[in-house]
Amino acid sequence: MDYYSLDTLLQALADPTRRAVVGRLGRGGASVSDLAAPFDMALPSFMKHVHMLEAAGLIRTRKQGRVRYCEIDGARLAAGGRWLDEQRAIWESRTDRLERFVTDRQKEQGR
Amino acid sequence: MDYYSLDTLLQALADPTRRAVVGRLGRGGASVSDLAAPFDMALPSFMKHVHMLEAAGLIRTRKQGRVRYCEIDGARLAAGGRWLDEQRAIWESRTDRLERFVTDRQKEQGR
Repeated sequence: MDYYSLDTLLQALADPTRRAVVGRLGRGGASVSDLAAPFDMALPSFMKHVHMLEAAGLIRTRKQGRVRYCEIDGARLAAGGRWLDEQRAIWESRTDRLERFVTDRQKEQGR
Repeated sequence: MDYYSLDTLLQALADPTRRAVVGRLGRGGASVSDLAAPFDMALPSFMKHVHMLEAAGLIRTRKQGRVRYCEIDGARLAAGGRWLDEQRAIWESRTDRLERFVTDRQKEQGR
């Protein structure tokens, strides 16, 4: 995943309404009106959130008659997490090395 | 981590310069001028990125004489990944169930 789309993805997730929608869709697909129901928000405002999630590739939508259904794109969500995982791995391996260093020193001093 | 600070954190990471700074600091602390060196950017613009990372709690800075040093707050980075991990876990368990369902059906039909 290139830098540009990771920007769009993290930007899309940097909002509590959009994270709640992703959380809901992770449990299974839903119509826009079902998704909007828990939020005290006008439908056009809610649709902006849906469009941002769609543009980020986090969800897919399709229209069936007059109803628009949404579902999650889990692969994309996984890709978003990968960068954070990598950073954590680097940081944790460094922390482990620091810890070993301190422990080894304490052992040496304890002799 | 509450919703508000998760917003700030994801917002802070939704930029390639700021992700590069986090990546660099994950390998060890550095001064602001060392961090800024690889970027073709005026120092005031670069400092805005540093401040956003600091406000999000992703990095800590301290001034020593005329030099400002930065280091990563790895715990915070881990907290940011947790939400994504949770979503992936939910999504993957659902995908696994779907796969089992399809495989079981195929076995039944194969009999």
